[in-house]
Formats: sequence, structure tokens, C-alpha cells
Amino acid sequence: MLPESVLKQAQAEMLDWQGSGMSVMEMSHRGSEFMGIAETLHRDLRELMAIPDNYKLLFLQGGATAQFSFIPANILGSKTKACYVNTGAWSGKALKAAKNYCDVVVSASAEANNFTAIPDSSTWNIDQQAAYLHYTPNETIHGLEFANVPEVGDLPLVADMSSNILSRQIDVSKFGLIYAGSQKNMGPAGVTIVIVREDLLGKAQSALPDVFNYQQQVEHESMLNTPATYSWYLVGLVLQWLKVQGGIAGIEQVNQRKAQNLYAAIDRSSLYSNPVAITDRSRMNVPFILADKGLESVFLKAAKEQGFLALKGHRLLGGMRASIYNAMPESGVEALVQFMAEFERTH
Amino acid sequence: MLPESVLKQAQAEMLDWQGSGMSVMEMSHRGSEFMGIAETLHRDLRELMAIPDNYKLLFLQGGATAQFSFIPANILGSKTKACYVNTGAWSGKALKAAKNYCDVVVSASAEANNFTAIPDSSTWNIDQQAAYLHYTPNETIHGLEFANVPEVGDLPLVADMSSNILSRQIDVSKFGLIYAGSQKNMGPAGVTIVIVREDLLGKAQSALPDVFNYQQQVEHESMLNTPATYSWYLVGLVLQWLKVQGGIAGIEQVNQRKAQNLYAAIDRSSLYSNPVAITDRSRMNVPFILADKGLESVFLKAAKEQGFLALKGHRLLGGMRASIYNAMPESGVEALVQFMAEFERTH
Repeated sequence: MLPESVLKQAQAEMLDWQGSGMSVMEMSHRGSEFMGIAETLHRDLRELMAIPDNYKLLFLQGGATAQFSFIPANILGSKTKACYVNTGAWSGKALKAAKNYCDVVVSASAEANNFTAIPDSSTWNIDQQAAYLHYTPNETIHGLEFANVPEVGDLPLVADMSSNILSRQIDVSKFGLIYAGSQKNMGPAGVTIVIVREDLLGKAQSALPDVFNYQQQVEHESMLNTPATYSWYLVGLVLQWLKVQGGIAGIEQVNQRKAQNLYAAIDRSSLYSNPVAITDRSRMNVPFILADKGLESVFLKAAKEQGFLALKGHRLLGGMRASIYNAMPESGVEALVQFMAEFERTH
Repeated sequence: MLPESVLKQAQAEMLDWQGSGMSVMEMSHRGSEFMGIAETLHRDLRELMAIPDNYKLLFLQGGATAQFSFIPANILGSKTKACYVNTGAWSGKALKAAKNYCDVVVSASAEANNFTAIPDSSTWNIDQQAAYLHYTPNETIHGLEFANVPEVGDLPLVADMSSNILSRQIDVSKFGLIYAGSQKNMGPAGVTIVIVREDLLGKAQSALPDVFNYQQQVEHESMLNTPATYSWYLVGLVLQWLKVQGGIAGIEQVNQRKAQNLYAAIDRSSLYSNPVAITDRSRMNVPFILADKGLESVFLKAAKEQGFLALKGHRLLGGMRASIYNAMPESGVEALVQFMAEFERTH
């Protein structure tokens, strides 16, 4: 889902960007028009996330999944170990990919509780000889989210923020590296953001393709090859929309209210339930099941008729899932809550 | 440059794709709407290029530049050598990246003639123990293009068609692998097409990220992670436009006429000249210089005032360059030819 105002602006500018006579799609990435778009994009992301000067911004391709491999290839340096925290499907994939590059220390795992609670970070097995510690602040499939940034001593903290970037305020200085695919809270699929602390640069394996070598791309401002220009432009529009919403502080309040409304509706119902520990519940992805499993397909069909299109849970878990990213308005969540109550009353 | 009809359709469908109530940007890549777009895209590309059944199509991210590394990582298998033909800036980059993966046999090089003529393929040093032979059918900066597919015996022929794919008819069955970035003749930047013969699959290095492993992506129909959905849609629109132009056979005739018109204008002038051997001249990129180098900036300024925006040569070569890809209409080339003649008359 994207904000309607973003889509409308993209529509209006499709054949003629701000009087240039060109579509953004037709601009050379080295021309002054696109350079202006790129500069605004960088400045707005820095401002919105309050990114300190000793962090570099990269706008790459390939998705967060590609970074599962390119992170160890870029920042392991001479180290041979990395710590991973396993809290669900996405952190599990990151962990598996890293095994091709180093010894993986599983610092903690929520597997024993079926990914319904995040192990307290005071209990984590943190190897200070590791190159970094990787975790996934929000798990879209299992619906877990870290309420706070874990303390991991001096290890660079690496976070896959694909599904909750820009949804809540974070202190970037606590991280060594933050990465995120664009398609949840930043725009359409096709851009991967990497925010990396300078001291982690310059350690890449030599066979790594230049376009995925952070140091190389820092030196070329993410334009070592032709970037996904139109996707950069769209991410820029989403950032401008976010500024109008009061920035991340503003949208975080909306996201809190949306999540509270939906979880409260689930918790007061006898039909719906969510298995996740209350402190670890995701504000972005709310999985729930029906007490009567036989009603699931009836629920999904009725929901679809009312215009709630994407409520089927991930095939790994089944059940239902409501994803309530930044672009979902409060009225959309309220309508869902009303629909769920009415469905419970009549079934 | 993109066809205006493509931009207009994208504009019209921006907020509501064919009555679905959704923008293509908002579609789940696993939903039925996007699956339909993806199927049409695959079918249209197969039909337009007459791709045989024993070739697989991949739509990846990262650009052709990333493939400079991922091709050897995917298809070398147990071989330790690959042949490269060096005809300009792009083949030189591909060759350099491959050296991280294998011994590179330089089968031929146009360096000695300053990249103004392609060495005859009968003189190439082809090592039949190599895994493949790589060449670049069109060099955008130097303005060289192969008029025919070279004969390389039994070696799989690998071609970077980024800048001339869909511009002329080719016999796909002569190739082991064809790859291309989308941003010249296929749409906006952000998609990389790989057309690979089945027998070259299944040989990837184990540390290669799954999203760049051809076999893995074949099995997942290029959706191992979230693809660049909107870019796929736009490439699809360009293919539909191309079908209306009479397919590749139709656009090839237009491209021939455009190139003939421009080269004839250069050759009959005493101000402009193009250094490339006549048989090796590119139909897509026409570099030229002015006999009076002092007139270059005057020429560029006058051209810009007339709306010819991108005539400055690449910084590596200087001079001028006209890129006349599929989306450039014949009238655009004719207008340029008229402008050049008028400029010569008055300077």
C-alpha cells in the first residue's frame, strides 16, 4: 500500500517532471535533474532518521535477501565468526545465508517457544570475537517486534529493518549497519537501503561485485552503475509524504494507535487470538487465528467482499495476518476492527 | 527515452490497474493480478525474440554490471578459464570483473585500433577448454556493433545485449546466455534480463546469494525474493508497444533507416566525422566529432536550445554522441540531421 497522495503526484509527473519535459524514467542518472532528486532523497532520509554524519547511505538493488550474503562479504574483514539472533522466518534466512561466509554463533533463538516471544537480551550468548551481531527488529510472518534496541556490548549491531524502518523512532548511533528493502514502508520494491557506519567500510572480499561493495558504492554515491532511478524518485516522494505526517515521531503515534486498536479487538474477542507475548507484539504485522478453524475460509471470503484483500496468513503459518504499515490509515484499521466484530457477532 | 504511449498508459493506470482498485506498485507479487502481469511479460518476450523452449528467462536486479561477476560465478562450473573479446569500455569491464573468478583468455582486442574496428572473428584466439566466450554486441561509448553473431565453435556464447536487445533480429539458439539491463530498449532501469540455455544451469558456486543463483531463480520464476514489480510492469508495457510496431522485424527496419540517415549526414559533411569502420558502426549509438574542436561547446549549446538534450559524448571519449534507441522516432533523427546541417551551414 502506498499513500494516495504519492501515487497522485507520480501520476501527475509521469510525462513531465516539474516542467523538465521528461519523465523521471527518461532522465540520465548523471543529469542535473536526477542528481537533484538524488540529493533530496539523501537529505530527507538523513533528516527523518537523524542519521549521524559518520554513517553513509547506500541505495542498492537486489533486496534485503541479497544483503543476507553481502553483509558478511562486506564487513567480516579478517574475523571468522558472526552472531545471529533467530526470532522468526526472516532472521532464520539471514542466519542460513551467513553460514556460507563464516561460523555463525546463534546468540539466541525463539524456536523453543514457536517464535511467540523474544528471548531477553540479557540471556543472549554474545561472542565478543565475532565481527557483528545480526537481528531482525520486526518479523513479518510471526508478528514479533523488538520494543527496544538490544544491548550487545561493543559488537557492531546489524539490523534488517525491511518491515519497520520509518515506523518508529530509533537511535541510529546504536547500530553498525541498518538495511531495508523498500517495499514495506519506503515505496515500491526495487531499492535496498543500507546505512553503514564508516568504520565498517573497506573490509570487503575481493571477489564481491563492485556494485555490491559498500566502499565502492560509497565512493560513487550508489551510482557505480545505473541505479533504479524511478524507484529512487518514488522513495523520495514517500519520504516527503512522511515529513508532512510529522516525520517518524508523528507516524509512530499513528502506528501505536492502529496496533493498540487491533490488538485490543483481538484480545477482547473470544473468536480471534494472537499468540505473541504482549511486549513482543509487532506494530506492523498482526497475525491472528480463529477459535473455530472451520470459519477461516468463510472469514476470508467475507473480508474480501468488504474490500479487505490481504488478510490470509503466510503459507508457513496459516491463519490470518493484518499488515498495517505506515501507508495504512487509522480509518482502515478501524474498518477492519468493525468488520471483525460484526463477523464474530453473526457467526 | 520511452514511447509516449507507454508513459501515458502507466499514467492512466497509476492508481487503478485495470479496475483492480490497486496500483501495480501496491500488488503482492504472489497475488493473481501481478502473476498475470508476469505471465504476459514472459510470454511476450519469448514471442518477440523467438526464444526456444530450452532457454529459461530470468528477471533479476543489480544491472548488467552485477552480472559481469555473477555469470562466471554461475556457469564456470569446474572450468577455470573463460574467453573474452575486448571491443570497448563495456566488454573491458566485463573482462576485468571475470578475473576475480577465472583465468581470462583475451580472444581478441580492438585496443590497437583505438576501438574503431572489430577484429574479424576468424582471427580470434578461442580456447576450447574455456567455459564460455563473452562478447558485447554493441558498445555504447565507442559506437561499435557486431553486424553478425560470431562463430565460436562449441563454446557457449555469452552476450551483453544491454544496449541493443530488441533492436534487431537475432537467432537466440546461437547463444548460451544473453543478458541485458532494461534501461536502453526495454524500459526504465531496475530490471536485468538473463536468457540462459538449460545446460548451463546448476553449476553455481555455493556462496553465491540465492537471488543471483540462476538455477534457484529458475525454480522460483525470478520471485525468490520480492521482485521489482513496477519495473516488470513497465517492461511489459514496452514489449506490448513493440508488438504494435511490428515486433523486432518492424523496429529493426526503422532502426536501420534512422542509423543510415544519421551516418549519411555525417559522412557527407566536412564538419562532422565518425571514426568507426563502416561495417562495425552501431545502429544505437553514433559518436561523432567536429573538425573544429573549438565549436563543440557552441554546438552543444545550440543543440540544447533546439531540444536535443543528450548529445555530449561520454566523458571517456569526449566529442558528441547521439543515442538512437528503439523509442527514438525517425522524426527525431530527421530533426537532428536537419539541425546538424543548419549548424554546419552557419558556422
